[in-house]
Amino acid sequence: MSLNIGVIGTGAIGQDHIRRCSKVLQGSHIVAVTDINREHATKVIRDLGIEANIYTDGYEVINAKEVDAVLVTSWGPSHEEFVLAAVAAGKYVFCEKPLAVTAEGCKRIVEAEAAQGKRLVQVGFMRPYDQGYRALKDVIISGKIGEPLMLHCAHRNPRVGDNYTTNMAITDTLIHEIDVLRWLLDDDYVSVQVVFPRKAKHAKAHLRDPQVVLFETAKGTRIDVEIFVNCQYGYDIQCEVVGDIGIAKLPEPSSVLLRSEARLSHEILTDWKDRFIDAYDVELQAFINDVLAEKLTGPSAWDGFAAAVTADACIAAQENGEIVPIDLPQRPAFYNK
Amino acid sequence: MSLNIGVIGTGAIGQDHIRRCSKVLQGSHIVAVTDINREHATKVIRDLGIEANIYTDGYEVINAKEVDAVLVTSWGPSHEEFVLAAVAAGKYVFCEKPLAVTAEGCKRIVEAEAAQGKRLVQVGFMRPYDQGYRALKDVIISGKIGEPLMLHCAHRNPRVGDNYTTNMAITDTLIHEIDVLRWLLDDDYVSVQVVFPRKAKHAKAHLRDPQVVLFETAKGTRIDVEIFVNCQYGYDIQCEVVGDIGIAKLPEPSSVLLRSEARLSHEILTDWKDRFIDAYDVELQAFINDVLAEKLTGPSAWDGFAAAVTADACIAAQENGEIVPIDLPQRPAFYNK
Amino acid sequence: MSLNIGVIGTGAIGQDHIRRCSKVLQGSHIVAVTDINREHATKVIRDLGIEANIYTDGYEVINAKEVDAVLVTSWGPSHEEFVLAAVAAGKYVFCEKPLAVTAEGCKRIVEAEAAQGKRLVQVGFMRPYDQGYRALKDVIISGKIGEPLMLHCAHRNPRVGDNYTTNMAITDTLIHEIDVLRWLLDDDYVSVQVVFPRKAKHAKAHLRDPQVVLFETAKGTRIDVEIFVNCQYGYDIQCEVVGDIGIAKLPEPSSVLLRSEARLSHEILTDWKDRFIDAYDVELQAFINDVLAEKLTGPSAWDGFAAAVTADACIAAQENGEIVPIDLPQRPAFYNK
Amino acid sequence: MSLNIGVIGTGAIGQDHIRRCSKVLQGSHIVAVTDINREHATKVIRDLGIEANIYTDGYEVINAKEVDAVLVTSWGPSHEEFVLAAVAAGKYVFCEKPLAVTAEGCKRIVEAEAAQGKRLVQVGFMRPYDQGYRALKDVIISGKIGEPLMLHCAHRNPRVGDNYTTNMAITDTLIHEIDVLRWLLDDDYVSVQVVFPRKAKHAKAHLRDPQVVLFETAKGTRIDVEIFVNCQYGYDIQCEVVGDIGIAKLPEPSSVLLRSEARLSHEILTDWKDRFIDAYDVELQAFINDVLAEKLTGPSAWDGFAAAVTADACIAAQENGEIVPIDLPQRPAFYNK
Repeated sequence: MSLNIGVIGTGAIGQDHIRRCSKVLQGSHIVAVTDINREHATKVIRDLGIEANIYTDGYEVINAKEVDAVLVTSWGPSHEEFVLAAVAAGKYVFCEKPLAVTAEGCKRIVEAEAAQGKRLVQVGFMRPYDQGYRALKDVIISGKIGEPLMLHCAHRNPRVGDNYTTNMAITDTLIHEIDVLRWLLDDDYVSVQVVFPRKAKHAKAHLRDPQVVLFETAKGTRIDVEIFVNCQYGYDIQCEVVGDIGIAKLPEPSSVLLRSEARLSHEILTDWKDRFIDAYDVELQAFINDVLAEKLTGPSAWDGFAAAVTADACIAAQENGEIVPIDLPQRPAFYNK
Repeated sequence: MSLNIGVIGTGAIGQDHIRRCSKVLQGSHIVAVTDINREHATKVIRDLGIEANIYTDGYEVINAKEVDAVLVTSWGPSHEEFVLAAVAAGKYVFCEKPLAVTAEGCKRIVEAEAAQGKRLVQVGFMRPYDQGYRALKDVIISGKIGEPLMLHCAHRNPRVGDNYTTNMAITDTLIHEIDVLRWLLDDDYVSVQVVFPRKAKHAKAHLRDPQVVLFETAKGTRIDVEIFVNCQYGYDIQCEVVGDIGIAKLPEPSSVLLRSEARLSHEILTDWKDRFIDAYDVELQAFINDVLAEKLTGPSAWDGFAAAVTADACIAAQENGEIVPIDLPQRPAFYNK
Repeated sequence: MSLNIGVIGTGAIGQDHIRRCSKVLQGSHIVAVTDINREHATKVIRDLGIEANIYTDGYEVINAKEVDAVLVTSWGPSHEEFVLAAVAAGKYVFCEKPLAVTAEGCKRIVEAEAAQGKRLVQVGFMRPYDQGYRALKDVIISGKIGEPLMLHCAHRNPRVGDNYTTNMAITDTLIHEIDVLRWLLDDDYVSVQVVFPRKAKHAKAHLRDPQVVLFETAKGTRIDVEIFVNCQYGYDIQCEVVGDIGIAKLPEPSSVLLRSEARLSHEILTDWKDRFIDAYDVELQAFINDVLAEKLTGPSAWDGFAAAVTADACIAAQENGEIVPIDLPQRPAFYNK
Repeated sequence: MSLNIGVIGTGAIGQDHIRRCSKVLQGSHIVAVTDINREHATKVIRDLGIEANIYTDGYEVINAKEVDAVLVTSWGPSHEEFVLAAVAAGKYVFCEKPLAVTAEGCKRIVEAEAAQGKRLVQVGFMRPYDQGYRALKDVIISGKIGEPLMLHCAHRNPRVGDNYTTNMAITDTLIHEIDVLRWLLDDDYVSVQVVFPRKAKHAKAHLRDPQVVLFETAKGTRIDVEIFVNCQYGYDIQCEVVGDIGIAKLPEPSSVLLRSEARLSHEILTDWKDRFIDAYDVELQAFINDVLAEKLTGPSAWDGFAAAVTADACIAAQENGEIVPIDLPQRPAFYNK
């Protein structure tokens, strides 16, 4: 039993998922692709030695008879329409983040999916598939640290390009914490505040960097997330959960311990791609397996919507310096586990 | 050349300082003591095998001819009057924290000392004498991490007694961070906010525990300090300084690395006395040496005043949930280094 | 392009490899199986939902038209004959360790393979496929520690069964270090000595445990390997390479850092299966890919022979307490990389 | 009550002990000194601002009425005669290592001391006073790791001078492990073997470096000590004790954890003086306290003798490549604790 997949968009991430499905994972075949640059789509397929139909647009891919499930890896603003079309066609769809560029758009998807009566949509948040976060969640569930009271987190990049803006610290960077911490805590945010420390020397003139984002959750857990995208020293993801009786910390990536030049040291990664590379494989394999079993379990359209609502509040908090409430509607029973 | 010291108050800390000066440090003799419980003072002296005059009250100790310098280790509310008396007598005085129970009281001492024209007062903040904090400050000064932008700190106790109150989290616990972080950064606080996470299971009904205190400094550095006094697992002091190009973390206390029972582990201390025990020796030896050299360099009356003003703002912030400004007057040139 | 695999032996490891090829890896199908217990083979196939022919014996599997490559996972004493038969049939064969139960047997395979003119045999040593050992080898190759001078290693199990003997510490336990350290150093052993420390409390009466094995290599590197199979605390593999200018240590498996009950701790694994579980996947995927590319690169028949010769010398050294030379014939040019 | 100390030899270590007794420790005064270079002795005393009599030779110091105890910090070959003279005079004596330059010389001291009927001699082995080794011994005694079965140790220096010889790896370097491991295990060596790995790139032509020394103890514990005095990267002392049920490792010196330049790192010391600097203070304070209490508890003349006998066997083992027995006579009851 193999899942026939159609891919909309053969840019960097699309191409990588095609390779992944064809060369690494089990249980799927790429049978259809499209890209606004048809030549590029053709080249990707040829270079990987795959046989797949090349279609003119995403709608053709979605509606192609041979396609069982769709990967949406096109330009962000096009995600919503393709996901809605896939849902309308009753086909499973894996959509890279963002699910839609506005919370409203995410809500339309949630409503379409609910109306349709079955979970068809998975959003491409990969951190819940990271071995480290899973181990951390296992420790929380085990009760070894008691109930989580506080989280101290950091998301650091060595540097960012000139076109990276202060808002992108939320929509492109923090968005991963927004999703994974909800999952980790099985909780929702109720308010957010953003404070701006003294600016880092290596941050561009137009960019406020670093930032500290402070969340409160429905259960009262307090979260601080440092976002620092010009930290120079490495790509570094930290997450420490302080519970009633103990503290658990996200594992550092495994590496050789070196004694040299008067330092006892481990390597710190510098490229974000290396940090979660395994998680992408696990994520997509889980999607394939879940579709074959006809039961999605990964990040849902609701999770995509919750992330969008939260990100909007964070941006408001960046701008007004106040504690901004996060008003998420009641989750439809449909999305309860 | 030896310093003749008089001690006011022979409770736990007073007794410990007497032992320290007599049995551990160089360059001083305890020559006079007093306590509201004269018998207790007598017993302390006898048990340690020291010859010292027993006086009726602190004023007698301060004014005794044989006394060159005074240690004030009496009940907190009496500190101010004894420090003022020592300053009036032109004698060096080491006063355990608090310098005075109000910021106003601290200010009176600052003014008395300034009027007198010479630094005579040292406040008993011992963390700047801890080897770990000193190593951390050396790293900051070295430029290896660039300018400090953010500090992530924690002050955790396994448990506290029934009479420990929410305000004491500031005046008894955070007070150490208030002092040592000013010293570490060579900076002053300009505002503070306190947030209360979900309450810890083992905290008493009347106590809000944990708390997170958020400072901004004059240079724009942002500090978060978690205070958690019923964390159960140990006495744990954390301080991480995030700079432009790197991060430095306060050393964990040195301990044997153990492989046993499926854990690779280090011990965490459970008693605060063990954590800074060496710092007390260094602190008091520095005071003795500085007095003999006639130039105090440790925490000053001004530092005690700054700590009191900051603590008052923290308590206001606990109570009103807002960002409370911290208005410290301009530091008298007298206290510049 | 998919590799059709026949499996000889459906015991624990055989069954696991069948699952791996069918459910985890890419590029292969299990098309034929056999087991001395035919019912068991049938059940394994059925439980995994695989279609494969069931044959009467290993020779039938080897000679089946539909079989491109063979996995030998039968009883150790039968390995040699099946590998020889596969080589004679010109088919690729992956043989679980041992390649043969005697060095002589391994040599017969080496000679048969060489006569046949093409590398067809891979031995199931999985550690060179472990991410940690690969990272360690990368550091050595990088020159960051200079040339390796000494290795300090340990192989510890929490406990072993009653039938585990002193010799098995070599043939079942040390055999992994014998292989992986040759690969790590790209070097050969020239002598070995075994010393027996004071016996561990939890070791059975008939068993000498722990043992320390001391190797010298052709390049003069000295290796000490502690073997301790009743260490109680965990399954723990250590390898530290001391070079001219630095030291590199095999990574500890990644795990959550926990602060609880007065300990700062990481988990230590207790089951050897968890330690190298990923390496088995990488190993077999590499075999499949290499066969499809018609160029084996993994542990060769020569490596299997070298391990057997070395193990024989270790056993002699256990028995006579002396420094025993290890005389490996010149490696046929055929096996040079 | 203060101990009046006379010092024989004002070279580097002598001068440092004079400073220590005068400026750091409690309970002693330096009242007499001598040096073959009288001017130097005078300068040392003057620079430290101490009043002490300057004598013509060590015998005068030993016999001076005002001297209660003697520190022998002169040239190694003169130690024996001065220690014997002090014992003959019934005075306590602290002698820097070596106690005597031959095992025979040490034995004469042991016999003189025993004849005299009272422990008067302490040898300057400082490692048993190191906080790390003490913590390690506490763990052993606690039973947390069971009985010690194996020790894996290393003694590494970044580099040595041209005049450092292969034998000095024993007499100047390993000598510290010889002493401290006996103390740690409360055990004696029964044999030793030395193996020479491939030579380190940065070792001088005449020097065999590194070396591995293998001891067996009376209780059957096996010890390997790597000696590597041109390791370049730092001064690094390692000691790992493998017991029946767990493993304990000597603490790494405490230091700031740094994230910078893609490394997560701790500092490694490069100067041996920094590594045991605190231990020298503790050692000499213990000597002073023990003399005042009239009961020596530190490294004894017997320990000095045992170290000398062991070192002789190590040198024989370096030269003949064999397992050399270490025959220590029965310890006189006098030296039992």
